[in-house]
Amino acid sequence: METYRVCFADTDAAGIVYHARYFEMAERSRNAALRSVGLPSSELVRRARQGDGAGLVVHRGTATFASPAFPDDLLVLRTEILKHNAARSWWRTTLTRDDVLICTIDVELVCIDAMTGQPRLIPDDLKEAIGKIATQETSARAPLELAEP
Amino acid sequence: METYRVCFADTDAAGIVYHARYFEMAERSRNAALRSVGLPSSELVRRARQGDGAGLVVHRGTATFASPAFPDDLLVLRTEILKHNAARSWWRTTLTRDDVLICTIDVELVCIDAMTGQPRLIPDDLKEAIGKIATQETSARAPLELAEP
Amino acid sequence: METYRVCFADTDAAGIVYHARYFEMAERSRNAALRSVGLPSSELVRRARQGDGAGLVVHRGTATFASPAFPDDLLVLRTEILKHNAARSWWRTTLTRDDVLICTIDVELVCIDAMTGQPRLIPDDLKEAIGKIATQETSARAPLELAEP
Amino acid sequence: METYRVCFADTDAAGIVYHARYFEMAERSRNAALRSVGLPSSELVRRARQGDGAGLVVHRGTATFASPAFPDDLLVLRTEILKHNAARSWWRTTLTRDDVLICTIDVELVCIDAMTGQPRLIPDDLKEAIGKIATQETSARAPLELAEP
Repeated sequence: METYRVCFADTDAAGIVYHARYFEMAERSRNAALRSVGLPSSELVRRARQGDGAGLVVHRGTATFASPAFPDDLLVLRTEILKHNAARSWWRTTLTRDDVLICTIDVELVCIDAMTGQPRLIPDDLKEAIGKIATQETSARAPLELAEP
Repeated sequence: METYRVCFADTDAAGIVYHARYFEMAERSRNAALRSVGLPSSELVRRARQGDGAGLVVHRGTATFASPAFPDDLLVLRTEILKHNAARSWWRTTLTRDDVLICTIDVELVCIDAMTGQPRLIPDDLKEAIGKIATQETSARAPLELAEP
Repeated sequence: METYRVCFADTDAAGIVYHARYFEMAERSRNAALRSVGLPSSELVRRARQGDGAGLVVHRGTATFASPAFPDDLLVLRTEILKHNAARSWWRTTLTRDDVLICTIDVELVCIDAMTGQPRLIPDDLKEAIGKIATQETSARAPLELAEP
Repeated sequence: METYRVCFADTDAAGIVYHARYFEMAERSRNAALRSVGLPSSELVRRARQGDGAGLVVHRGTATFASPAFPDDLLVLRTEILKHNAARSWWRTTLTRDDVLICTIDVELVCIDAMTGQPRLIPDDLKEAIGKIATQETSARAPLELAEP
């Protein structure tokens, strides 16, 4: 679980958070999940620079918006892995404010070779990290409440 | 059809366009489509300031990535409306580079009252504009070629 | 003092944080400073919606870069007010990583009427908040060390 | 001279373009200037990938804001080089809307080795490109008119 404070840079002229910015917040939350199981994104970058790299890139991403967020809102981000196999993983990040659902971001990540950009199998330690996140307890969290229309 | 030149601000440390930035490009293309049928987004903003406003906000958005884009790439954006009703519209923006598919952005837009943020019916002239875009000929364009893996 | 974790969205194809993104981080730090003295930006937004609003907008901003930052870096942000008067304030945000200077962001903020966009005097409570930040002790912090070339 | 259409992604909850986004627009204009003299940024990226790279990075950047810009505004960007030497160059981008000055972005670019990130002399063809831009006629353009307060 991470928190994120909305700043003006996140918002648009409609006065609410711009839809694409939620994907950035979800990236932060996925990075935090990987860091929490011992594999910070900096380690993946370090290996890539040494020519031995695997990267996780977004193949498909979907955001579903339930309620708008505003400047200065403190959002809570929770990330879980829904499914994973030898080459792909499906992640869900849920953003809430005071237990009210703001939006859900689902992404399918594919593993690529950092030099060639071609798909490859997920390396062992990254696979292990993904497995650890996938088995973390998420059911304990409070059920989300939809904002009143 | 619009073109968009990728700048460094669009890219990330993996050397390719950051996934969330494609949603911004799709917004540009939808705005251009509305402008081309006589309803620029500035007109919607002007009305909203006068308290008589309707806005189109993204309720759900999905990006599917076929091939990466790089700094300085010249992308071609084509937007079409797949479906629409009294309150919602479904838009697709396709981004290509030299007729190779880069990604597809699908969004479902809902109409809201600009003051209250509550859902409302699409006002007549906006509905008419959406209808015009929905009936534009899109079949004439060249079939997209998937990048070689 | 705030911390900020660099994500891929902050970086560009050169592998480092994109220069414009530091201005967003500085905004976060200024917001946090205002919040710490009892005037969160949400309060300014709330008043603006009620037609009684004053906003602080950037009139001039300068970033000076000392050393690059990379994905996953944990940056420390410190904001101070260098000077202020009835209508303007000059803020400095210093970003460091492990006490190495990354960059300095200086902005001159002007107070505007949120409805008309015209310059106005800073309202009393905002002026008081700015005064509190301006007198906070900043000398206690460790002297910054420039990165080895 | 380039044009740029403001989209909602460029704006913030104050209803105007967010200050940091102007730095992105200025980057577009500098890229266009380099492309116009035969050195697109993609060429610099290509060389960097081959280990023979020089990059231009922002050492210092200043934005001065004269008048706000709004969603759907069509901005005109003009970039000139004020000064340059063997390792550095000073660029100015002026953004206008209907000949009214919106803002001026000044950046000092330093040349770095793309592998090590260390400062280096500007390679010959890049130096030549910078020289060409620096001598382009800019005086012919209409004098800028400041927005009425």
